[in-house]
Amino acid sequence: MKWQKKDLLGLRDLKKEEIKILLETAASFKEVTTRQIKKVPALRGKTIVNLFYEPSTRTRVSFEVAAKRLSADVINIAAEYSSVRKNETLNDTGRNIEALKADLIVVRHNAAGAAAMLSRHLNIGVVNAGDGWHEHPTQALLDIFTLAEKKGKIEGLTVTIVGDIAHSRVARSNIWGLTKLGAKVIVCAPSMLIPNKIEKMGVSVTSNIDKALSKSDAVNVLRMQFERDQISAFPKRLNYFKNYGINQERIEKTNKDIVIMHPGPINRGIEISSEVADGLNSVILDQVTNGIAVRMAVLYLISGAREK
Amino acid sequence: MKWQKKDLLGLRDLKKEEIKILLETAASFKEVTTRQIKKVPALRGKTIVNLFYEPSTRTRVSFEVAAKRLSADVINIAAEYSSVRKNETLNDTGRNIEALKADLIVVRHNAAGAAAMLSRHLNIGVVNAGDGWHEHPTQALLDIFTLAEKKGKIEGLTVTIVGDIAHSRVARSNIWGLTKLGAKVIVCAPSMLIPNKIEKMGVSVTSNIDKALSKSDAVNVLRMQFERDQISAFPKRLNYFKNYGINQERIEKTNKDIVIMHPGPINRGIEISSEVADGLNSVILDQVTNGIAVRMAVLYLISGAREK
Amino acid sequence: MKWQKKDLLGLRDLKKEEIKILLETAASFKEVTTRQIKKVPALRGKTIVNLFYEPSTRTRVSFEVAAKRLSADVINIAAEYSSVRKNETLNDTGRNIEALKADLIVVRHNAAGAAAMLSRHLNIGVVNAGDGWHEHPTQALLDIFTLAEKKGKIEGLTVTIVGDIAHSRVARSNIWGLTKLGAKVIVCAPSMLIPNKIEKMGVSVTSNIDKALSKSDAVNVLRMQFERDQISAFPKRLNYFKNYGINQERIEKTNKDIVIMHPGPINRGIEISSEVADGLNSVILDQVTNGIAVRMAVLYLISGAREK
Repeated sequence: MKWQKKDLLGLRDLKKEEIKILLETAASFKEVTTRQIKKVPALRGKTIVNLFYEPSTRTRVSFEVAAKRLSADVINIAAEYSSVRKNETLNDTGRNIEALKADLIVVRHNAAGAAAMLSRHLNIGVVNAGDGWHEHPTQALLDIFTLAEKKGKIEGLTVTIVGDIAHSRVARSNIWGLTKLGAKVIVCAPSMLIPNKIEKMGVSVTSNIDKALSKSDAVNVLRMQFERDQISAFPKRLNYFKNYGINQERIEKTNKDIVIMHPGPINRGIEISSEVADGLNSVILDQVTNGIAVRMAVLYLISGAREK
Repeated sequence: MKWQKKDLLGLRDLKKEEIKILLETAASFKEVTTRQIKKVPALRGKTIVNLFYEPSTRTRVSFEVAAKRLSADVINIAAEYSSVRKNETLNDTGRNIEALKADLIVVRHNAAGAAAMLSRHLNIGVVNAGDGWHEHPTQALLDIFTLAEKKGKIEGLTVTIVGDIAHSRVARSNIWGLTKLGAKVIVCAPSMLIPNKIEKMGVSVTSNIDKALSKSDAVNVLRMQFERDQISAFPKRLNYFKNYGINQERIEKTNKDIVIMHPGPINRGIEISSEVADGLNSVILDQVTNGIAVRMAVLYLISGAREK
Repeated sequence: MKWQKKDLLGLRDLKKEEIKILLETAASFKEVTTRQIKKVPALRGKTIVNLFYEPSTRTRVSFEVAAKRLSADVINIAAEYSSVRKNETLNDTGRNIEALKADLIVVRHNAAGAAAMLSRHLNIGVVNAGDGWHEHPTQALLDIFTLAEKKGKIEGLTVTIVGDIAHSRVARSNIWGLTKLGAKVIVCAPSMLIPNKIEKMGVSVTSNIDKALSKSDAVNVLRMQFERDQISAFPKRLNYFKNYGINQERIEKTNKDIVIMHPGPINRGIEISSEVADGLNSVILDQVTNGIAVRMAVLYLISGAREK
């Protein structure tokens, strides 16, 4: 099987085989990043536009580094500060970028479906770098890549995702990706942070983190986005840490080889303790490293698809 | 004739022959942007600084893409957020950029004459990317390039420019360029948006858009800058659309081959209807594409002039 | 002797021989910037991250140009606008950048010791681009490089630094560098702007600028940072210019060959008159030019040190 899609909008739309192609291509790019000269000419002469309607230094920088290691030219548009102030619609902005003969748009937007809408209107490739509470496929791919690297497989593993599931595109993309590859997923949060009918996505639900951890090969700890929603709408911070925070005591009560993941940036002492974040089971920085390889793979395959 | 100028400050200063050189060079660069690898080494090792005192993602991105396709290194300075906060004068900023051994400054400034002042004080090339209400020469060049591409010529054509003529550098540069190349220009707006004595620039004036369209081969629809001036100072939006908005009905009453241009970003339903903006006569996205070729030509010729 | 350090945190930590290596390497890179193609492949495939927690277009641009002339890939992070809003600690940000397999971080931070702290936690190179009131080593190196270029030596020269010594990282780094290389340093300011016990750094102190100038081969005029501290906390502007401002009259009363330096951006009529800033003795723009060569040398040596 060969990669055919011109866009990467989410993991929900992908077949198991497509996810595997992405992960295998990422593995071959990971080797590149260990070289003395960490650059390949694969996308020389291509123009990649990072179109970010939400601030996200981490994701933007990761895509920018990935694109530059492929020798592409990168244009950053921080749409929050830009001509979008002048009320140009997202579609018009996309069409203008296409008219510049850019090859690919990486888009981050606060509205679910933004990337999909762009992709319907454009011939050039669109990569979803996070759309509202919907999907963040490259984050889930790098989570899965890192877990597979650590455990040698995904099939048959059990992964707990803990945190604000209801408002997390990371959770959603992980659920699609992990279940397609044959993992079991447990979501764990206070009930107000669990979306209705999430069981239909094929996951188990609990509000008991210790029980969840005891069954899990890995835990993906979501950032509590206190800056996005008012803290008053949430269980109090301390209370959250007491009931759901991943600390050393919890880890030690459970499977000793449990893999600790976090999409970052971490809130030390809120959803995770420093001891765990910096501990032996943590792969949080491996996730960042693998993010480059995964995004190189995505940019490379998407660009190639257009040319056939 | 060969290009000699070290700067591009406006179309008013250019001879007809110079405009033709720019357009012909743009035509040869347009071919580059259709290649698989859209990049030429013409400006390798050159440093181009985009110095923007006004936010303008569109123009900045267009210049940045153009420079990168010529293999130049590009430095973006968003002066609105920068050390210019520290009250450094424009001249001092320019001299500092020159001292970095940059080769060329692309400057956007809210004061008319800013680019010209820089050019008097610097030995390196200066390209005006818009100065107050004065000129925006690369925008006019890409408008003219696109019109010539569509109609096969400029000489003998009649072009209506509709909108806020008084506060439009785009209008001013188009008038200089089109009249030098032998086109007739009609400006159309409510009288309060027509500058005094504009007839001296060699244009006809009307406030009747239908009459103007009936005589025109093309119409260049200016953006109504409601974000810049208070709406209360203007004819009301709806009223504007009724009296001056370019809609399908107006287009159909007139010359069927009329070319529809707009410098963007478009305000759908304010100065132009969606039907017209996305219709067969519209070359709005061609303008964006041609903007790259025109700016490649400008950067290339200006850089070359310095070396002789 | 060969360069061994993986970081450049300040001039206080450097041996005289190390400063000389930096200056000699800068001299060889200065030649590059006079070529037609001002670019060398020395750092091709390397990734340099500019991590700026304070706005500083001048320093950021200088490092960016230097890195690009070495063919490195550059990633700019304006941390003031970025995910650092999300309260990620400086160390976590640094570790994430390291995990991207970046090769070097250039960091500007408002806290003294920020660069040193990063360097203790990271294996990749760290260059201090200014940390609080502590050090700004590349600025001092370019000042010293420029002075040596003009005078043929540093040893035996006398240099006055005038301005807000107490809050100046530029002053501090210059004092360390100049005294190590055998120059005499006089600091001159109203007493409230002189830090306690500064004599221990091996400098003389005066509040009489004319007396200081009469003994000096060069004067380094610090910017009065009126935007940082309230003007009311300072001697009044006019008063400052009268008592400490470097004007033509003062220069003429003294050594005719005195070298005038300023780290920029200059406040014309506040700490320096236009006549002096633009006069024959001024090397202010040479400093900017030499800043590129000095920063190329720093990036090159730091990158090389890591590979051994």
